[in-house]
Amino acid sequence: MQHPMTLERLTAQFAANEPRYIEEWKELLRFQSISTDPTYDGDCERCAKWLVSHLETIGFVSRLIQTEGKPVVFAEYIAPYKATQATKTVVFYGHYDVQPVDPLELWHSKPFEPEVRGGRLYARGAQDNKGQLWYVVKALELLIQEGALRCNVKLLLEGEEEHGSAGIAAALPGWGDLAKGDVLMVCDTGTMDPAVPTITMGLRGIAACTVEVKGPSKDLHSGVHGGIARNPALELARLLSTLHNLDGSIAVEGFYEGVPPIDPADAALQNTPPLTDEQYQQLVGVLPQGGEVKFTPLERNGFRPTIDINGIHSGYGGPGSKTIIPASALAKITCRLVYGQDPERTMERLKSHLRSHLPKGCELVVSEEHLGGGALRLTSKSKLMELARTTLKDVCGRDPIFRWFGASIPIIAALAEVSGAEPLLVGFGLEEDNIHAPNESFALEQFKRGFLYAGLMLSRL
Amino acid sequence: MQHPMTLERLTAQFAANEPRYIEEWKELLRFQSISTDPTYDGDCERCAKWLVSHLETIGFVSRLIQTEGKPVVFAEYIAPYKATQATKTVVFYGHYDVQPVDPLELWHSKPFEPEVRGGRLYARGAQDNKGQLWYVVKALELLIQEGALRCNVKLLLEGEEEHGSAGIAAALPGWGDLAKGDVLMVCDTGTMDPAVPTITMGLRGIAACTVEVKGPSKDLHSGVHGGIARNPALELARLLSTLHNLDGSIAVEGFYEGVPPIDPADAALQNTPPLTDEQYQQLVGVLPQGGEVKFTPLERNGFRPTIDINGIHSGYGGPGSKTIIPASALAKITCRLVYGQDPERTMERLKSHLRSHLPKGCELVVSEEHLGGGALRLTSKSKLMELARTTLKDVCGRDPIFRWFGASIPIIAALAEVSGAEPLLVGFGLEEDNIHAPNESFALEQFKRGFLYAGLMLSRL
Repeated sequence: MQHPMTLERLTAQFAANEPRYIEEWKELLRFQSISTDPTYDGDCERCAKWLVSHLETIGFVSRLIQTEGKPVVFAEYIAPYKATQATKTVVFYGHYDVQPVDPLELWHSKPFEPEVRGGRLYARGAQDNKGQLWYVVKALELLIQEGALRCNVKLLLEGEEEHGSAGIAAALPGWGDLAKGDVLMVCDTGTMDPAVPTITMGLRGIAACTVEVKGPSKDLHSGVHGGIARNPALELARLLSTLHNLDGSIAVEGFYEGVPPIDPADAALQNTPPLTDEQYQQLVGVLPQGGEVKFTPLERNGFRPTIDINGIHSGYGGPGSKTIIPASALAKITCRLVYGQDPERTMERLKSHLRSHLPKGCELVVSEEHLGGGALRLTSKSKLMELARTTLKDVCGRDPIFRWFGASIPIIAALAEVSGAEPLLVGFGLEEDNIHAPNESFALEQFKRGFLYAGLMLSRL
Repeated sequence: MQHPMTLERLTAQFAANEPRYIEEWKELLRFQSISTDPTYDGDCERCAKWLVSHLETIGFVSRLIQTEGKPVVFAEYIAPYKATQATKTVVFYGHYDVQPVDPLELWHSKPFEPEVRGGRLYARGAQDNKGQLWYVVKALELLIQEGALRCNVKLLLEGEEEHGSAGIAAALPGWGDLAKGDVLMVCDTGTMDPAVPTITMGLRGIAACTVEVKGPSKDLHSGVHGGIARNPALELARLLSTLHNLDGSIAVEGFYEGVPPIDPADAALQNTPPLTDEQYQQLVGVLPQGGEVKFTPLERNGFRPTIDINGIHSGYGGPGSKTIIPASALAKITCRLVYGQDPERTMERLKSHLRSHLPKGCELVVSEEHLGGGALRLTSKSKLMELARTTLKDVCGRDPIFRWFGASIPIIAALAEVSGAEPLLVGFGLEEDNIHAPNESFALEQFKRGFLYAGLMLSRL
């Protein structure tokens, strides 16, 4: 027999089970599943196995699917009712890997020893994405227990989202119907204001590379060689300074190829409400002055591509001075791409710009490229969106806003295609969660909102 | 009674004592006397004390002179003959501190565990300056033993040469006659070719600072914030790219104030023999393409100032990618200054350039400035130079060349003034010694040449 699920019931059960939910969530957070650094391969594997076991205990048939990279946790729940044409299959996508933790000295508690302070759980991954996947798993557990889950559910939890999703991307085309479904549910996004739910209408794509300018065969004495040898640190700085024009636009020839003009209706949704200077300064300590001056900050973030330097390293950085001309200089670069840009082609343009702007006598080495995938763009007019809108209003007491979002979940566009499912991106992250930064955390209040949304939404599908 | 000293006697005694000289030299190299990092303050102190004891055993009256920074080893030898008007006092300047050792992983043997391989002694400081001061100390030991030292000798061995010499610079004016002398002998320079001795006719001054571009209050997610927030790594790169013009000249307003035109006679000496592209490429792996295109490489190095980036650090530098906009970016900068430039004023010009070129919304923090002192410029026409020329010809079998040298020994100009002594800069370092870099070493053959030069020169004074 099929039981209805109500917001009241979900709220009551959350209250009754919250301490256990948090303890299990902490257990998940203790795995040092940093995907970008091979040192942690074993931790990633152990984390994936732990998820498989846990999902078995709550009613899923689970296993690991090996890929060229990290394994994917695949778990399936078949609704115990007679399937009809109307029975939906929800594919939930999440990731169990996390970002690196340095600079470690800025953390107030250890990144892999989760700790609750002031209504927040602190740990690397507390929000992105272990926290957000955990409220979905716990909501599913409850719905299954209470017989309130009418749809089939497939969980796909990958281990390389923070490192370009190469493993799952390569594996996907060979999976046949494994990932087929109707709704592609993702909870890996955020909202500007905890009181205002957000439906994400688009994501940017991403392409990354590491570039190194090589000069002399060793570090040189800056007195003995200053004025004679080129300085790779300076040449890299000069090279990076050629990437943008003074108006903030990108100076790389052909970089904007395929970028569509901004639809005025989308722009109107995106700018409602607008991001004010005061709001932004309060959030991150600076004014929203990056990027192209001719667009609003939210337009730039949602509809325009970027080139950002994620790191630059060369020579000495310790106390005092070390009078050298460094032998080489390295920069980590990522491009955020919008719908219409081809990742491979755009990366080629960037590389040829860098090559053509490097002065004679330096060598350029481009390595560790990864093409995380293209951008995603959805429509706000579907039945699924309508159901999400109503559900979010029920949970949060007010209509959601729609946002084209600057971040990337590299695999979503590919997964949407392979699964045939309509993506639904709703998340409860906040800026102060410090994802990708020291002291990542997730508010317990937001964790609860996520649980209520996931529970209600899944019971209604 | 006074004994004459000959090259033959020096050579024979060197052969007889070489193993002991090397063992003692190794003992000196085991002190981790890195002056720029306060972690090693104790090692510097222990190194200085060891030198004081050793100098006592070979006939000097020695003590430590405390300064605001590291102590100076002061040792004096009074010639046991009746002083006449003609009795000279030689002030020998050297330094017992060394450069930092990172990147440690590039060393083939540990930097503070000296090791002889292939006719070279490997260790941090093996040449700069512990190796070069050691052949002088050992030559003095022999001359004293054999009664062949007719002049008075004062040794001034400081512990902050690699960190701007602030301690001795502040102490010097209060020393009265302590440092007075006739000849200021320094062996902290090099020569291009082991077969061709070099007399250094000039040194550049140095001024250093650390600059930091500060942006958001924390590292930001480069997707969530890319296109909205300025990127401090990129802004620092853009800032550094404004320091030079396309022709290699410095674009900082007023930076060249006081820089004299190059004297054609000096240029002729400096370019004889010239530095060829092939020679330079073989030495350091790149062509001599840095600096101002309108001067020859040796002119640029000897007569023109520079701004070099010694290090630049921001954000992530590990394997894979970390998709952040770093909160800040730091660069280590040194300027080499020529005779006529005022270090303080030049540093002011640089700082105001940096401030005026920083875009709105970023903060610039300039710290750890140090003004190492002005440049030095000598004349090749003195009696002392003539004696040095003859002595070098006796030792090496050919006439020395004269070189205005791009490196700095910050305190020499000040010391020349306070001591009233005429500087004499001859050294036996080679490019392949890798000073300031991993795998520093000094050829035993060059150590011997230095010993012979010091012994013969000091016996003739």
